[in-house]
Amino acid sequence: MPEKVGEIGEFGLIQRISDLLKKEGLQSERVTLGVGDDTASFLPRPGFELLVTCDIMVEGHHYLPEHIHPFEIGRRAMALNISDIGAMGGRPLYALISLGLKPEVPVQYIEEIYRGFLMELNPLGASIIGGNLSKSGNGMFIDITLIGEVEQGRAVSRSGARPEDAILVTGYPGQAAAGLQLILHAPHDSKLLSHPLVKVYRTPSHRALVGRTIGQTGCATAMIDISDGFLGDLDHICEASRVGAELFKEKLPISDGLRDAALILNRDPFNFFLGESDDYELVITCPPQKVALLRTVIAPCCPVPLTEVGRITGSARELTLVLPNGEKRSVRPSGWDHLRFTEEV
Amino acid sequence: MPEKVGEIGEFGLIQRISDLLKKEGLQSERVTLGVGDDTASFLPRPGFELLVTCDIMVEGHHYLPEHIHPFEIGRRAMALNISDIGAMGGRPLYALISLGLKPEVPVQYIEEIYRGFLMELNPLGASIIGGNLSKSGNGMFIDITLIGEVEQGRAVSRSGARPEDAILVTGYPGQAAAGLQLILHAPHDSKLLSHPLVKVYRTPSHRALVGRTIGQTGCATAMIDISDGFLGDLDHICEASRVGAELFKEKLPISDGLRDAALILNRDPFNFFLGESDDYELVITCPPQKVALLRTVIAPCCPVPLTEVGRITGSARELTLVLPNGEKRSVRPSGWDHLRFTEEV
Repeated sequence: MPEKVGEIGEFGLIQRISDLLKKEGLQSERVTLGVGDDTASFLPRPGFELLVTCDIMVEGHHYLPEHIHPFEIGRRAMALNISDIGAMGGRPLYALISLGLKPEVPVQYIEEIYRGFLMELNPLGASIIGGNLSKSGNGMFIDITLIGEVEQGRAVSRSGARPEDAILVTGYPGQAAAGLQLILHAPHDSKLLSHPLVKVYRTPSHRALVGRTIGQTGCATAMIDISDGFLGDLDHICEASRVGAELFKEKLPISDGLRDAALILNRDPFNFFLGESDDYELVITCPPQKVALLRTVIAPCCPVPLTEVGRITGSARELTLVLPNGEKRSVRPSGWDHLRFTEEV
Repeated sequence: MPEKVGEIGEFGLIQRISDLLKKEGLQSERVTLGVGDDTASFLPRPGFELLVTCDIMVEGHHYLPEHIHPFEIGRRAMALNISDIGAMGGRPLYALISLGLKPEVPVQYIEEIYRGFLMELNPLGASIIGGNLSKSGNGMFIDITLIGEVEQGRAVSRSGARPEDAILVTGYPGQAAAGLQLILHAPHDSKLLSHPLVKVYRTPSHRALVGRTIGQTGCATAMIDISDGFLGDLDHICEASRVGAELFKEKLPISDGLRDAALILNRDPFNFFLGESDDYELVITCPPQKVALLRTVIAPCCPVPLTEVGRITGSARELTLVLPNGEKRSVRPSGWDHLRFTEEV
């Protein structure tokens, strides 16, 4: 029988996690106290602002344990926090992990989650410096606080988009969400489970390096990661910047995989693109004459398409979809509401 | 009918919380981005290390909603994080709040929790700069990340205690835990509910100012807050410092209130003192000749007793209780295990 966390207890588990971090994680010179005191502590670098974000993943709500391995849960939970730091143009540094656990969870399951965290953190030179363990009410939860840094004055917020700015998006939003729907549609159909989008869902990614590189150019006027769906997050930019947006439907990068999956699922691929939130891509705005520069700077480090999909307008919070025939449709941001569970587009 | 969080949704609730923070919370000049972007950001002060801690409170496990008001839940959750920063000799600065919520919770209930947070943060000049909301599996949870600062090199860790150091404790540990037991013992007995220790439980406190003041003297060799019970946390110091401890039973500050409550509950008051964790008092070690100085410096700011209860020994991780007749008893640190639920002493 595999060892359970309730058997080794809180301090036993802290020891196991601590050992794993020492062996498989990175140590930073600027961390003056890591796991195992009242607080962790570190020395910030002069000339940098600190960025802080936290994100919760709740079992049964943000992930379904029967359809995802613990290693992938760890990757996904960390990727979505890294994505937030990247969307500010920052670099992730230190993570704190809060876990709500059921005593019957195998210790190995938790270790695999931590390996998932490290899989995301190690390549970026970032490390886990603290956390907290607790019994949860029912169902596990993971809450990560991630601290990053950005050169003073270089953070790219949501609030700087201006009329006439180009709207850019990285990658192919909607793919991971469609992958999840394929899994849920036919959980035991091995042919469906070998669909490329299932792999996209199971191997979460973020665009932190793209965000960081774009931030360094000083050309982006606003940037955000898609955690509330493409339209939802574009609306966040519009709200904070007091502008509107016009999207050209034929320019939206719908991958062949997404078209195929949408066909299988009998859904409109644009719904996945506009409304779902499982791909942590970036939405960026910049003056139109800077688009080429942004493409050039990200090419060497990040082989990901940067597609121009529309432009910012002066009509506060009006989101318009322009169809190929020139017809304009008002679209409304709904996206993912973490308390309401709505998923309409 | 009071408005529910599921009715106003994630973004409605963020707006309400944001309004409340603007109206009732403090703003810091060094915060460059607060609630409402991908991350919060702030400018650290040169010459300071940053301290980071997080603590989870789970409904039904760390608190029983039927016996505690939301305002007090907020105070308690924040106090225990502030306590950790204080136990390092630091000053709290910025909090991030992660909430796992049930959609049927009234909005007002959440607002009261936030008022509890602010009740603790405002007097210290600290503020809430971000967070995350999610639906929870079953039962609410609160996870707070608190960031503080301490002058570079001035953090008081657990690992510096040396043989012959005096062991000091603030206040009267065990009182809040006994107060909670009184509530649970007779939840509808208004006479019992007017017992002074019920109020102690319901009005959580911390010793962050004491910790900060002691940290500034540079005299403490180790400091920790009691979140795993007095013995449990003294053992953390002994483990990290590779020393042992000898406690003098007749010196342990057992309040009259605790003696009275223990009598009602038919329990040994020393069990509450040594094993329970609901009072966030501090355990401090320092060279014996510095005890008077520490008492002197804390007197003007914090009217709390600082009792010398024992001394550090060279016997690694041996904890001994010396009875009034001189007899020595080995005691074992058990305290509160957040995954096992053990509460033995």
